[in-house]
Amino acid sequence: MAVHIFEPETYYSTLGSHPPVLEVDPGDTVSTTTVDAGGGDRNGDFCGVSGNPQTGPFAVRGAEPGDTLVVKIDRLWPNRPNGFTRAQIAPNVVDFGYEPAFDDTVDRAWWSLDLETGVARLSTPRNRVGGIKLPLKPMLGCFGVAPERGQAISTATSGPNGGNMDYRGFVEGVTVYFPVFVEGALFHLGDGHAVQGDGEIVGTGIETSMDVTFTLDLVRGHSISWPRAEDDRYIMAVGNVRPLDQAVQHATTELIRWLCGGYGLTEREAHLLLGQCIRYEVGNVYDPAYTMVAKVEKSLLAPFN
Amino acid sequence: MAVHIFEPETYYSTLGSHPPVLEVDPGDTVSTTTVDAGGGDRNGDFCGVSGNPQTGPFAVRGAEPGDTLVVKIDRLWPNRPNGFTRAQIAPNVVDFGYEPAFDDTVDRAWWSLDLETGVARLSTPRNRVGGIKLPLKPMLGCFGVAPERGQAISTATSGPNGGNMDYRGFVEGVTVYFPVFVEGALFHLGDGHAVQGDGEIVGTGIETSMDVTFTLDLVRGHSISWPRAEDDRYIMAVGNVRPLDQAVQHATTELIRWLCGGYGLTEREAHLLLGQCIRYEVGNVYDPAYTMVAKVEKSLLAPFN
Amino acid sequence: MAVHIFEPETYYSTLGSHPPVLEVDPGDTVSTTTVDAGGGDRNGDFCGVSGNPQTGPFAVRGAEPGDTLVVKIDRLWPNRPNGFTRAQIAPNVVDFGYEPAFDDTVDRAWWSLDLETGVARLSTPRNRVGGIKLPLKPMLGCFGVAPERGQAISTATSGPNGGNMDYRGFVEGVTVYFPVFVEGALFHLGDGHAVQGDGEIVGTGIETSMDVTFTLDLVRGHSISWPRAEDDRYIMAVGNVRPLDQAVQHATTELIRWLCGGYGLTEREAHLLLGQCIRYEVGNVYDPAYTMVAKVEKSLLAPFN
Amino acid sequence: MAVHIFEPETYYSTLGSHPPVLEVDPGDTVSTTTVDAGGGDRNGDFCGVSGNPQTGPFAVRGAEPGDTLVVKIDRLWPNRPNGFTRAQIAPNVVDFGYEPAFDDTVDRAWWSLDLETGVARLSTPRNRVGGIKLPLKPMLGCFGVAPERGQAISTATSGPNGGNMDYRGFVEGVTVYFPVFVEGALFHLGDGHAVQGDGEIVGTGIETSMDVTFTLDLVRGHSISWPRAEDDRYIMAVGNVRPLDQAVQHATTELIRWLCGGYGLTEREAHLLLGQCIRYEVGNVYDPAYTMVAKVEKSLLAPFN
Repeated sequence: MAVHIFEPETYYSTLGSHPPVLEVDPGDTVSTTTVDAGGGDRNGDFCGVSGNPQTGPFAVRGAEPGDTLVVKIDRLWPNRPNGFTRAQIAPNVVDFGYEPAFDDTVDRAWWSLDLETGVARLSTPRNRVGGIKLPLKPMLGCFGVAPERGQAISTATSGPNGGNMDYRGFVEGVTVYFPVFVEGALFHLGDGHAVQGDGEIVGTGIETSMDVTFTLDLVRGHSISWPRAEDDRYIMAVGNVRPLDQAVQHATTELIRWLCGGYGLTEREAHLLLGQCIRYEVGNVYDPAYTMVAKVEKSLLAPFN
Repeated sequence: MAVHIFEPETYYSTLGSHPPVLEVDPGDTVSTTTVDAGGGDRNGDFCGVSGNPQTGPFAVRGAEPGDTLVVKIDRLWPNRPNGFTRAQIAPNVVDFGYEPAFDDTVDRAWWSLDLETGVARLSTPRNRVGGIKLPLKPMLGCFGVAPERGQAISTATSGPNGGNMDYRGFVEGVTVYFPVFVEGALFHLGDGHAVQGDGEIVGTGIETSMDVTFTLDLVRGHSISWPRAEDDRYIMAVGNVRPLDQAVQHATTELIRWLCGGYGLTEREAHLLLGQCIRYEVGNVYDPAYTMVAKVEKSLLAPFN
Repeated sequence: MAVHIFEPETYYSTLGSHPPVLEVDPGDTVSTTTVDAGGGDRNGDFCGVSGNPQTGPFAVRGAEPGDTLVVKIDRLWPNRPNGFTRAQIAPNVVDFGYEPAFDDTVDRAWWSLDLETGVARLSTPRNRVGGIKLPLKPMLGCFGVAPERGQAISTATSGPNGGNMDYRGFVEGVTVYFPVFVEGALFHLGDGHAVQGDGEIVGTGIETSMDVTFTLDLVRGHSISWPRAEDDRYIMAVGNVRPLDQAVQHATTELIRWLCGGYGLTEREAHLLLGQCIRYEVGNVYDPAYTMVAKVEKSLLAPFN
Repeated sequence: MAVHIFEPETYYSTLGSHPPVLEVDPGDTVSTTTVDAGGGDRNGDFCGVSGNPQTGPFAVRGAEPGDTLVVKIDRLWPNRPNGFTRAQIAPNVVDFGYEPAFDDTVDRAWWSLDLETGVARLSTPRNRVGGIKLPLKPMLGCFGVAPERGQAISTATSGPNGGNMDYRGFVEGVTVYFPVFVEGALFHLGDGHAVQGDGEIVGTGIETSMDVTFTLDLVRGHSISWPRAEDDRYIMAVGNVRPLDQAVQHATTELIRWLCGGYGLTEREAHLLLGQCIRYEVGNVYDPAYTMVAKVEKSLLAPFN
């Protein structure tokens, strides 16, 4: 149960079978940093890689294809007092033919982050949105493991191995599960958002660099098909694909599998329960793969224990 | 501001330009009942029409195409102690090729509704789901106005005129807005659900008959493109279409229009605000038209007053 | 086997259970006219209804729900020397964010139709496209029967009952089959195109008024789920829905049903045959419901006779 | 203009920046072989890699990011007398809930290929489909170049760099264009089909090993966004993505770009021409990315020369 302090020097713009920067034991904790989506670090200096550059990958000793990697996000907080967003809702999220009539030509907006009080405010452009205080809800936009088949997949997108899911529920305190496709699992992380709306519809959250502490563990010999997660209140299953209809299908089916395989429900019980109790949350509707999360309250699972 | 007690005798399975059953003034309140999705009334007797039979239509004096109909749901509560659901998640909501291994052949499940304590419990089939107490959250699954162009549209589906949206947020206390396409607006309602999960993924909520009280009003000369709604906390815009990706587009664009046209935001302010603050909720992913709701907290709109 | 000459005086902008304008016997032929999509007749005069106004409906004596209506398009030819198209590919058919840089502001283009030589040429706007001679391939864009459940459905869209399919294969010589949902079937037709590209991507073909002769017949007691068609070379099944992925599903499944139910293939034979021999054609990717056609050559079906 | 005879010894199951197996000059011709989708060579022996194993990559001297790679398919013919297909239409291509009632449990079908007369016939399972003689139309299912950003992408899918497009129009005589993302372009090829239906709806064409001869060339300093192709009659643009609606968008937009950038049409001319003359062909509706091809006849482009 070692704690590793890791200062990154290299970054990747794909999730793939890159040489691990650190090898840890199951149960170990890593404390490190991530740069922002554009590659800016805590000082705003460019790390040399843009497009959701990833810290890592971290190898877990003994992880084998067919295992499940457990990632507990212990702590996640911005390490600088600002972040940026894009300023236009993406064309794929608005009506065909809708063209906004903007009164300025802003492409990138900057937000101040008060790391003490935990509040974000729009700095530029100057307009009335700056009058709103948004509570910080730091999350990881892009993180996951090396994919199957020797692939190296752009950090712009996501899949069964995780990646650029941009789900605002991936916050401190959440435990995320990924299928292991390669020896060591090879965990990557980056693309921290201080705040993000559902869908990441402007193509960004409030992009900033982060201090991150996480704990890695393994469930050996247990494979899952899509990322899963849980917090105190919910279990969640994640589908990453376009279109959103299909992301719904993967998330729902993975949640059924979890209920039946992990909680011992019969399939009939799972269908009856989810029919009246499932909740969906939109991760992103911006990236090449969209993300939908299906979840159910843990308290509803008491009768099955 | 009259209150009309209306006992329905006829039901329609389309939203269309049917002869109104009652004509009311703007501001009037109507207290009536709805049968369940299968046409069963408070006694379980069949009303003669199945498939989300609608009470109404109710005409509002003076309503003209181009106006907006305002529907406040004043009270909504089941009027019988049971309801039914289907027992299988629909094939379009699960992975292609997924086939559940059920241990029974149940098609329809029955739930008891305790109307005093406000709790639903599975009665049949008998299994452990019956150990869960679900709080009643009565909602209207299908309601709306006569569509444009002399159409009569099945209560299985929905569109700009509302219809079978199956959004679990349409509960008591919510005000819903519909575009008026015909004289009198012609408001229909039915398909009450005592409880419903996101997405209506088994094809039903807990279907039951309801006592409903609602107040109708008009915003004259103000047209909207898609249904809108609000409660104490949120303003909401609704997109009804397949696929879900496109429902996202309609809901998002309608919410932008509301912010700019109704709250005076510039388009840039609307894009910046929604980018970090929008919330999506899945209405249904079962009906011929899916439903997505885009919403934003009213408290965030204070700077624009 | 009477031949009826019918001169329309009324037009509908929905497919629905309107009073029939003429009742015919199975086997009868009707010779009539259609106005263009905007309601212009052979003289360019406005008929009073716009948006794909329909001639009809024509009732077939004895047609009952569960039968199949047979429509043979005997003759179809424009009855005036011009037609119009829109001039811009629809936003839903091009990349998100693509904005054309037009050098003019044309919204509607006019084409001359040489009815003797069978050639269409762009008249206005004047540009080099006018140098192209397009062979006339007159087709019906919108035709079908009254839908189920008492619905009246806009002629902008389509469904199991046909409607605005905008498939350029519906030409003279083709026999089209529709499910019968109401007594008399109630056949409507209109929206003739002198020429149309795949997908109807500018939202129109070359819209013009037509002389049409067709023969109506019945297959009693045989129901189909989606429109079917055949010509000398192919049998075809039609799916009408958004998104295109789902239209593929309906068209493919209906073609399997036809092979198994009509030609006696086993399901395995149908799957093996279609796997290597199916052809798809895009009807439209513009209307509220898209249209995909799945077809297979009749010559391949010889072993199953 | 050298001709290289290349005997492959290694195969890749991703398109990526693998070490080139051969470096050639622009204009050079390569004569080589491909194994079938399962890794079977001309003798049916397993090459060691399954899942559309690729021959190559071949590097072209001087190819730089921003260039276009030109691939002329000079010759393509099976090099063994048999091939296999799957025997069931994929669940994503048929109606939700459709379950075929098969009379056997065949998973893989075998077809004999008469390489002299150019005819394929079903061998097993034995049924009446075996009575059909299908003309061989050998095509490449999966071929393309290394993708951008250092990615390595599974040969199960496709993208702007080509890959598993499974379009039955990629036959002998066709010239295909790919964007160059890495030095040398790195051309891969494999997954030959002796015959394939539209959509590759059983998940395979008739999978077999091939003799292939192709010529590689460059268009320097000219970049394209999606693969393009041409034969004697058509120019074609290819969109590779899910859903099919979006593949339509990419293919259409790329064809507009080609007409404007390559043939000198104004955008208005391109929209007017394609509106009435575009043709779509479905590549595949099976792979993770679907493929749609938009094309137009070269003869229509005469006025623009």
